[in-house]
Amino acid sequence: MEEKFLITFEEEVPKYIQIANNIKKLIDNKEIKDGEKLPTIRALAKVIGVNNVTIVNTYKKLKNEGYAFQKVGSGTFAKRKDIVPIFNREYSKYFKKIKQDELFNIIDFAGETQSEVYFPIEEFKSIINMVLDRDGANALIMQEPLGYEELRKTINKEFWKNRLSIENILIVSGAQQGIDIASKAIININDNVIVEKPTYGGALSVFKWRRANIFEVNLEEDGIDIVAFEEILKKNKIRCFYTMSYFHNPTGISYSKEKKLKLLELAEKYDFYIIEDDYLSELIYESEIVHEPFKKLDKNDRVIYIKSFSKIFLPGIRLGYIITPDIFRESLQNSKINTDIATSTLMQRALELYIKEGYFKGHIGFLKDEYKKRYELMGELIKQELGEFVRFIDPKGGLNFYLSLKEKNITSKSLFYKLKSKGVYITPGVIFYRYPKDGDYSFRIGFAQVNEEKIKQGINLIREELS
Amino acid sequence: MEEKFLITFEEEVPKYIQIANNIKKLIDNKEIKDGEKLPTIRALAKVIGVNNVTIVNTYKKLKNEGYAFQKVGSGTFAKRKDIVPIFNREYSKYFKKIKQDELFNIIDFAGETQSEVYFPIEEFKSIINMVLDRDGANALIMQEPLGYEELRKTINKEFWKNRLSIENILIVSGAQQGIDIASKAIININDNVIVEKPTYGGALSVFKWRRANIFEVNLEEDGIDIVAFEEILKKNKIRCFYTMSYFHNPTGISYSKEKKLKLLELAEKYDFYIIEDDYLSELIYESEIVHEPFKKLDKNDRVIYIKSFSKIFLPGIRLGYIITPDIFRESLQNSKINTDIATSTLMQRALELYIKEGYFKGHIGFLKDEYKKRYELMGELIKQELGEFVRFIDPKGGLNFYLSLKEKNITSKSLFYKLKSKGVYITPGVIFYRYPKDGDYSFRIGFAQVNEEKIKQGINLIREELS
Repeated sequence: MEEKFLITFEEEVPKYIQIANNIKKLIDNKEIKDGEKLPTIRALAKVIGVNNVTIVNTYKKLKNEGYAFQKVGSGTFAKRKDIVPIFNREYSKYFKKIKQDELFNIIDFAGETQSEVYFPIEEFKSIINMVLDRDGANALIMQEPLGYEELRKTINKEFWKNRLSIENILIVSGAQQGIDIASKAIININDNVIVEKPTYGGALSVFKWRRANIFEVNLEEDGIDIVAFEEILKKNKIRCFYTMSYFHNPTGISYSKEKKLKLLELAEKYDFYIIEDDYLSELIYESEIVHEPFKKLDKNDRVIYIKSFSKIFLPGIRLGYIITPDIFRESLQNSKINTDIATSTLMQRALELYIKEGYFKGHIGFLKDEYKKRYELMGELIKQELGEFVRFIDPKGGLNFYLSLKEKNITSKSLFYKLKSKGVYITPGVIFYRYPKDGDYSFRIGFAQVNEEKIKQGINLIREELS
Repeated sequence: MEEKFLITFEEEVPKYIQIANNIKKLIDNKEIKDGEKLPTIRALAKVIGVNNVTIVNTYKKLKNEGYAFQKVGSGTFAKRKDIVPIFNREYSKYFKKIKQDELFNIIDFAGETQSEVYFPIEEFKSIINMVLDRDGANALIMQEPLGYEELRKTINKEFWKNRLSIENILIVSGAQQGIDIASKAIININDNVIVEKPTYGGALSVFKWRRANIFEVNLEEDGIDIVAFEEILKKNKIRCFYTMSYFHNPTGISYSKEKKLKLLELAEKYDFYIIEDDYLSELIYESEIVHEPFKKLDKNDRVIYIKSFSKIFLPGIRLGYIITPDIFRESLQNSKINTDIATSTLMQRALELYIKEGYFKGHIGFLKDEYKKRYELMGELIKQELGEFVRFIDPKGGLNFYLSLKEKNITSKSLFYKLKSKGVYITPGVIFYRYPKDGDYSFRIGFAQVNEEKIKQGINLIREELS
């Protein structure tokens, strides 16, 4: 037990408040680390020389103010108020600052947006004009909080064989907004949320913002570690589980049907909800992968399904949708209204026509063919050139490979800086974990924004760095 | 003291938890009303037969879980977990359900979106095509979290005489998103927020979502009641003040320069921030009103300024911007990214060209002329036809009149239902208050979506109902 916990009490203020304030300062100054276990109640009481109940109150106060969280059976842990870890901040700054014209000179293995050349601009331009001619001012002024009704109908027909009620489809401005809105609608302060370890950093930020308690569970090759998952369920009341069921970001894994069914069963048994982020599931390169999301298997209305159109296929249009369970329909709708009233209607109308006229399917087919070539090349080169340095799982779809260093001789952050100085951008693992250090020896490389030539160059530069 | 507080204690659970759980149930079941004062610590301890300290802990628990809040010097008050009061829910449902074609048959004094006929569709269509021809795929795929740089430059030039740093301009998807993002960036749980009484319901919802403690301060004819405002500052650490400086929604009042300067001085003295929602300030009908928002007078970087383009001028395009103080620049940017990554770029490019080419100014001029006619007619008719029943302040701009009943013989909700059955939609005051009953005898009528004929018909129907 260290001296840092000792304080000289002032008379006027209750002791538990003074002790709590001291611990808050220690956490803010990083003398206690984020996620560090705090002393047991008994130990701390003894050191400071107060009653156990004083420390009970101290920890309660810290928990309530979001400076600590409790894991049943294992004690109390510190929680930093910083929403964005420092590196994440720096990392995202680089990308805020890259200008379009610089993109030609760098090898961007970090980007997730498709390159300009693949965007069906002429098609889309004529679609937009068709909408403006057809709908006139309505194409721009209508505000429908649930989204353009025809688009919701078309989504239901084209992607869900009309099996949904269109009342349960809510149009949102991309997947990130979907996660934000779903969180606002269902997660309260100190609610427990389970995420995959690692997971998408943008989702982590949202859950931290809701001041949820976040439990991470390791991923196996066919989905989350069910045993560890159920252990948490037994000890804690869980509100929801956030998952990417296909080509998980960053690891690239997809869930087996067994695990999906098991998780749905657990959701019913332990009364929690599944937020399914159906990420990149259109980009399947190997026939053994069958697209059957949680939502399709969901008999008890346990799944909040989030799908983005903007991520890859039509970036910049900022559109996606949520399928809401009946029980959350109204709160999700209100959450959307209070977030930004409604999503731009012109883009919704254009997308609707684009899907209905069959362009969307055609475009996906084209992208799949193009990306499959890159996928195969990158996979091959990783095996050949980096095989002695890294382990990885073949994703069989999506846009990324996730590599773990066999030897821990360089951290992913150092690797990021070194490669950046050579014009190669990778995504260090640290941004995918609640506790960044868990990602110190892994990184993601993706091929959304690099042609075959750049893939070769980039992999070679990575090899040089690791040799 | 009522019996409802009495409970039979179980042995295992600490008493303060049992008492708190009972009170939570009473609040959930509305046996204790939202905002109702809870008994003093001493009184409750005596009735239940426990120590004062037990009740101290009970109230602390309730506060931390968001079931109660404290006003220094006046005690502890119940806070319902319901985010949206029931009537607000019903009210917004009506508007979700109104179809475009029904709008022709109703008299919509509640709508705030301009009518279709005023939208400059042909201009906008040619602008969109100019952008698509000029920028190609970039017009659709670029994702810039801060917003399209040229648009930020144009805003700075056209509206702020290049006095801002464009780094401090953040494009958002309308004012509602601006409020949501600003709240996420600066308001934490249990932070104290002051709002005008009454205020915009959409802002109230966001602050409740952040689980802020909301203080309401009455409005006078030239802005907020400064004396009452400073009383709160003296007793409570305030994080921010949300204000609509021009044609306040719903009351229509505008701030005097004196009050703006005084509030900026208080912000510096008591270290709080001003969230300025610069609502409808382009629609000034009387020359005595000069547009000089808080942000323009802001010497100490105390103002987060929010402006929407979509509200009236170009509804459906869902665009607005925030001017951030330096200190919050980064957290506001991250807040935007975690909310929805970026705003649709095509619309930003179209708006930029629309402003730069001078169309925007022309369109505003046109709208001002049109709306001024309606404003004059409606003001005249309210005086003539409703003068014996209501009081109101002449807003001299904007799109709304706020009427208070001289005699409390019908609530605004009843009036809403009665008028609705005749095809007239008004906005009952209840949705503008933290405690809905404060709005029981006032209502808002606006002329954004009604032509002169409908204004006459509608006012007559209101007169019939009030007679």
